[in-house]
Amino acid sequence: MENENFDIEVCFTPEMFPFRQLRSAPLVVVVDVFRASTTICRALQIGIKRVYPVPTEGEAMAWQEKGYKVAAERQGRKLDFADFGNSPTGFFSTIDFDNLVLTTTNGTKAIEAASNEQQVLIGSFCNFNSLSNYLSAQPKDLVILCSGWNGSFSLEDTVFAGALAEKLKCSGFFKIDADSTRAAVDLWEKAKPDLQKYMASSQHYQRLLKLGLEKDLQFCLQMNTTEVIPYLENDYLTDIKK
Amino acid sequence: MENENFDIEVCFTPEMFPFRQLRSAPLVVVVDVFRASTTICRALQIGIKRVYPVPTEGEAMAWQEKGYKVAAERQGRKLDFADFGNSPTGFFSTIDFDNLVLTTTNGTKAIEAASNEQQVLIGSFCNFNSLSNYLSAQPKDLVILCSGWNGSFSLEDTVFAGALAEKLKCSGFFKIDADSTRAAVDLWEKAKPDLQKYMASSQHYQRLLKLGLEKDLQFCLQMNTTEVIPYLENDYLTDIKK
Repeated sequence: MENENFDIEVCFTPEMFPFRQLRSAPLVVVVDVFRASTTICRALQIGIKRVYPVPTEGEAMAWQEKGYKVAAERQGRKLDFADFGNSPTGFFSTIDFDNLVLTTTNGTKAIEAASNEQQVLIGSFCNFNSLSNYLSAQPKDLVILCSGWNGSFSLEDTVFAGALAEKLKCSGFFKIDADSTRAAVDLWEKAKPDLQKYMASSQHYQRLLKLGLEKDLQFCLQMNTTEVIPYLENDYLTDIKK
Repeated sequence: MENENFDIEVCFTPEMFPFRQLRSAPLVVVVDVFRASTTICRALQIGIKRVYPVPTEGEAMAWQEKGYKVAAERQGRKLDFADFGNSPTGFFSTIDFDNLVLTTTNGTKAIEAASNEQQVLIGSFCNFNSLSNYLSAQPKDLVILCSGWNGSFSLEDTVFAGALAEKLKCSGFFKIDADSTRAAVDLWEKAKPDLQKYMASSQHYQRLLKLGLEKDLQFCLQMNTTEVIPYLENDYLTDIKK
């Protein structure tokens, strides 16, 4: 198809991002299915206007001292000083604040790695259709940057990347040439007949399950629960549609 | 099965190796299907006794000045000063030397990354059965380190890693827990009905095909053409069985 012009490359970890082949991709989609990218979408969906991703605990505490609400997680657990953990199902109280500061083990590191690029969006299963339709409507070369786990590969982010790449290819504007993208699409094809079952034996699913976070895991694998598309504007994430 | 005790972790690039989860794996299998690990096996198979992997062109030239034969490749091409390129089918003349110095774009970098580990072996489709039987006979935790391409993921190394992991699991002594290993096995399962066809659209296959190296590509995908198992002893690779 002659329209198939745009490249998609998947990077499996933030540490691989400097070695990407698409050096000048104008768009990066950051993914941390379990759970940061799902939590960010959810926060914007329920009325928070800006999510400030910060890489370190110290920075998050400094923001908190200035009066900001903070969500902070390391190795799956909410940090004691924080108002919230990294749980997309953890914002049940009435939201009476506009800004949320977020620091997580892997997701906020990935956002930081991409933060100098032209355009940074956040993807997760919860905003899958909304995001893929947006990307198909204004196609350009893109990198899907998975957050991974402490520098190693994670299956859930890669399967999401494969789902997104396959959907974008169907739009007719994208091609799948990169080995990493082909692998991600093949893994998505293996996973999609029963996503829940495929993901349930992944390492991070098991890790979070042991922390009693089954409800979060279910939520993170539900597709299309929101239309929100978080994008990075200056130092915060906000809904691109607003 | 109660014997299933040993872990297998796949690292997709040398740059990911420092972030591996198996920090203390006693054994690393280095893979560069196209072509360094196939070339190393082939060199030892036809009578060369020691292959010295060196990371830089400068080091290779220094060895050459001392009288060593040198195989040197960058971005798929033989370097002008070298006696050979990185071609497993390129040693047709009578071998009248015992030592070969080898420097390649990715494979020798991966060997260097692993060189401080307890035991380093070289794997490729050409020594698949020999290597997997050896590993099953003395099982221990292991990392399969793929060479990738300039820091990014390559499909051919990963598919080989998946084939090896699947075979080792069948021995009853290994389990497949790591996300990276599960992904590699799933990709191998997708590839194995027609390995040649699956690999033919990979990026490095296409890159080497454009350089006229079709014969090398065919050779690198042939399984079990040798019993050689190269292992790193001091600063050179030699056949573990000798």
